[in-house]
Parts: sequence; C-alpha cells; structure tokens
Amino acid sequence: MSKKSQKSEKIAKVKKIKAELADPAVPLSEHLRVGEGFVLADLDPGSTPGFDDGKKAGEKALSKHSSDIGEWQERLFAESKGGGNRSVLLVVQGLDTAGKGGIMRHVVGAADPEGVRTTAFKAPTPEEREHDFLWRIRKALPGPGTIGVFDRSHYEDVLAVRVHDLVPEAEWSQRYGVINDFEHELVASGTTMVKVMLHISKDEQKDRLARRLHRADKQYKYNPGDVTERLSWDSYMEAYQVALTQCSTADAPWFVVPANHKWYARYAVQQLLLETLTGLDPQWPVMDYDVTVEKARLAES
Amino acid sequence: MSKKSQKSEKIAKVKKIKAELADPAVPLSEHLRVGEGFVLADLDPGSTPGFDDGKKAGEKALSKHSSDIGEWQERLFAESKGGGNRSVLLVVQGLDTAGKGGIMRHVVGAADPEGVRTTAFKAPTPEEREHDFLWRIRKALPGPGTIGVFDRSHYEDVLAVRVHDLVPEAEWSQRYGVINDFEHELVASGTTMVKVMLHISKDEQKDRLARRLHRADKQYKYNPGDVTERLSWDSYMEAYQVALTQCSTADAPWFVVPANHKWYARYAVQQLLLETLTGLDPQWPVMDYDVTVEKARLAES
Repeated sequence: MSKKSQKSEKIAKVKKIKAELADPAVPLSEHLRVGEGFVLADLDPGSTPGFDDGKKAGEKALSKHSSDIGEWQERLFAESKGGGNRSVLLVVQGLDTAGKGGIMRHVVGAADPEGVRTTAFKAPTPEEREHDFLWRIRKALPGPGTIGVFDRSHYEDVLAVRVHDLVPEAEWSQRYGVINDFEHELVASGTTMVKVMLHISKDEQKDRLARRLHRADKQYKYNPGDVTERLSWDSYMEAYQVALTQCSTADAPWFVVPANHKWYARYAVQQLLLETLTGLDPQWPVMDYDVTVEKARLAES
Repeated sequence: MSKKSQKSEKIAKVKKIKAELADPAVPLSEHLRVGEGFVLADLDPGSTPGFDDGKKAGEKALSKHSSDIGEWQERLFAESKGGGNRSVLLVVQGLDTAGKGGIMRHVVGAADPEGVRTTAFKAPTPEEREHDFLWRIRKALPGPGTIGVFDRSHYEDVLAVRVHDLVPEAEWSQRYGVINDFEHELVASGTTMVKVMLHISKDEQKDRLARRLHRADKQYKYNPGDVTERLSWDSYMEAYQVALTQCSTADAPWFVVPANHKWYARYAVQQLLLETLTGLDPQWPVMDYDVTVEKARLAES
C-alpha cells in the first residue's frame, strides 16, 4: 500500500471514530475507556466527552437518572435473594479535590444504602501494613447483590506508594501484574468492576484548594499536606499513566473522566454505573416458596 | 390533702402536660420518650403525636429538613477534624416491615455517606456467637464526627433471644443491666444515643406482608419465617415492653415512634436526629494551620 493510501485510510478511520463518538447511540463508556495508545496528558480535564449540552442539561440528566440507579440496584439486590451472586465494584480514584466525595453523595447516594458498601481507603494502619497490600481490599469486597464502592483503592499502592518510594521499586513494579490477576479472579467470581479516574487540571486543583482556605466552613477540608502533594504533580501524572495503561484490561477496563466540570464528572460516573447495571440486566427472582401457600398462612396468622 | 384536692391536682397536671404537648415549642422527643409508667400496649401505632397536619405536610417537612440533616452532620464531621471526638448513634429497632429500610433511605440517606456508618445486625455468625453479645456491637461503633446507624442492634439479644429462648433466662435476664452499663460508658465517652422503636400494629404488618406477596417485584422481600414470627407477636410485645422500660435511662432514653403511617415515622426519626444534632451544636473548627501562610504556599505551588 502506498504512503498516500495509508494516510487516507487513517483519515477515514479517524472520521469513522469521530462520527461514532458523536452518535448518541454510542455509550459513554466508549468515550472514556482507556484503550491502546491512551495518553493521559492528551486528555483535556475541562472537556465533556459525549455530552455537548452544557451544565444545566447535565444536572437535569443526573437528577433524572437517580431513580434508575436505585431501581437497577434493587434488582441486583433482589436477584441475590433468589440465589444470584453477582455484584458491582465501583473504584473511584483521583487526586485531592478531584470530586470523589461528590460522586459518593450525588451518584452513589441515589442507591438504597442497604445495597451499597462504601469503603474509604486512607494511609494503611500498622495492622494493614503487616499484610499484603490486597489484604484490606479483599475484606472490603461487595457481597452478592451489593454495589461496592472504593473511595481510593489498591491503586494507591502503585500511585502514592510509587511517587513517594514507600516500598522499593522491585516491589511496586510487580504490583501491576498482581492487580491484574486479582481483578481477573474477582470478575470471574461474579463482580463487575467499574474503575474510574477523576481527572482534574493542576490549575483547577489550585482554585478548589483556594476556595477551601477562603471559607471558614470549608477550612476543615484543607490539609497543608495537600500543597506538599502538589509538588509531586508530574510524578502522579506519570504514575497514573502507567497504572491506567498497565491495568486497563478487557475484564476490568479503566475509564478516565474529565472532572474540571463537577456536573460532567457526576453525570459520567452515573452513566458508567447505569450502563454496567443495565448490561447485567438483573431480574426479579422467582423465590423458592409457594406464593399461594404463603398467602393462606399469612391470612390465618 | 383531701382525696378531692388530690384528684383536682392530678387533673390540673394532666391538663398542663396536654397543653405542653400541643405546643409546637415542645420538642417531638417529649412526645415520644419512654418515661416512667410507659405502657407499649397503650400507644396507638396509627397515631401521629406532635404532628396534626397530615401526610402531605409531613412529607413536605421531611423533604424540607433533609438538607438540615446534611448540614448538621457536616458540622459534626468538621468538628472531629479539629480534634472533637463526639459522635451520634442512631439505633433503629422494629419488627419485620416496621419501616427500618425506609428510615435508612429517607432519613439517614440525606446525610453525606462519608460521615455515616450503617451496620445491619442479622442473626449472629458462628464467629460472633463465640464472643460476648456486645463484641460485634463494639466493633461497629461510630468514630469521632460520625453518625453510626444500627439497623437492629444489641437489643435483639433481649428480644428475639428472649422470645425464642436462644439462651437460658439466667443469661438474658442479666443483659438489661449489662446494656445499661455499656450505654452509660458509651455516652460518657462522647457518643449521643438516639434509640428508636418503630411501632406498628399486627394488622398493619399483615397488610404490608400481603403487599410483598402480591407484587412480583417485592416477593424477594418476603420470607416464610416472617409469618412464623407473627405467631410470637405477643411475646415480642412483652419483650419490647421490658426492654423499653428497663433500658430507657437518663443517659440513653428510648423513643417509641408510632409507625403505621410511614410518613410520620420518617418525619419523627428525622426530628429526633435533628434535635440531637442541634443540641450538640457542633461548630466549624479552627484548624491548627495558619491560613495566611497556607494561602501563600498554595499560590506558589
């Protein structure tokens, strides 16, 4: 093939991809999935892939679909009461102020708390440090019918740990493979993973931290360590680039959500979760009791 | 004093109490607290103490105060970041279908999940059975700044356990005192308890179970054991009567919420929680960093 025809083929391919992405029938996950050749630095944190209608429409969509999250989650929960063992695990990663808390309140908060298990992973405790880095993760996995939510996760063990040399390189460099094996097992056992990185720009983070310092009722959210962490911004971006590309597998892909616009990030994570739940398509279970018999027993009781 | 003047004094006292209870300035907790001489059987599960305006107004009030719950809970959480160690523990008890799940969704669900720790206590696991009945309770207590929520609790150890003779009487009869001592310590250590029993009638429970059996998408919530439990209704009422009166202490009073009207039960529990939070009156903390210094560090970062 000539260089010219190779080039025109490439252009056609790009056009095709662009056309697909503009099509509302293309699920948001296609816009956000970390695929081959992904480069974090090329993604604009202020963009809103797959949603061109602006903030008002985004907030309206979020509000509209909140009850859908609740309904599908109830179906998943009900399925488990009939013997099903499927579950969902939403992993939320992002630097300070990226908006993890807002996802918990506005997206996850729409589901019945009975069917949700949220765990915030902080710096490991002395007891946690005595074990393998996946020890505390395994203890927090969602049971059948449940949506597990990780606010930070085992990925900190290849992010903060790598950036600050908390363990030797020989150790953290092994972890990408360990994580992929672990997640492969997890998915095989019935847990569908939704791994999300909330991606903000360095300037946006500065603005958000400044707002915290400015307001007396938000100062409790600020920590001098937050500025110290900013000094390692480039190392974090590098560590994220490696983690995202090494650990975005067919089983458990990564999604990077541009998060300078909070409304977009919330809308996008909601859509990713909804796509996952509707894809699982859990059904109301047929229970193992006889409804007619039970109606009679109840009437007599 | 003559019998006649004793009688007129009593009548005056009752009138005074009634007038106070009709006064909107009387907090709802006064209507619902288990005090001396409390008799569960005398309380109408279909009543709406302290709220005469009906369902629509009740639902409106619930919705209106949802953001208050969120705000006060954020203050409590913030206080702990400044070194405070206070917390709240909401204990929700009630027979099947009493509406515990609705409290979790509609009352507790209004708070930021980051500051809430909910635990549902089921029949104890083999591991839990090997320990003292308070072992699993102690592990689930809220940390500083957090609202802990118990969906069932240590009270099952003097309710289901007593009704079904799961341990010898010599053992469960000791537990009222053990619970009072435990709660006294808990309160002394900074945890304010809000203990709520959702009180439904036997007929209302029958209707609710029938609705579960009737709808294919609610059958998963029904369990043949629910009807079996109804056969012990009177024993449960007796066990509740004893637990409520033995364990309603000055430190940690019980509140009985008539719950045949779901809207009232939710409104009432919300008010009890709000009274508690506003009573604690947590303040935005003054943090131990220098705001001016941090603004400069941030600007340079």
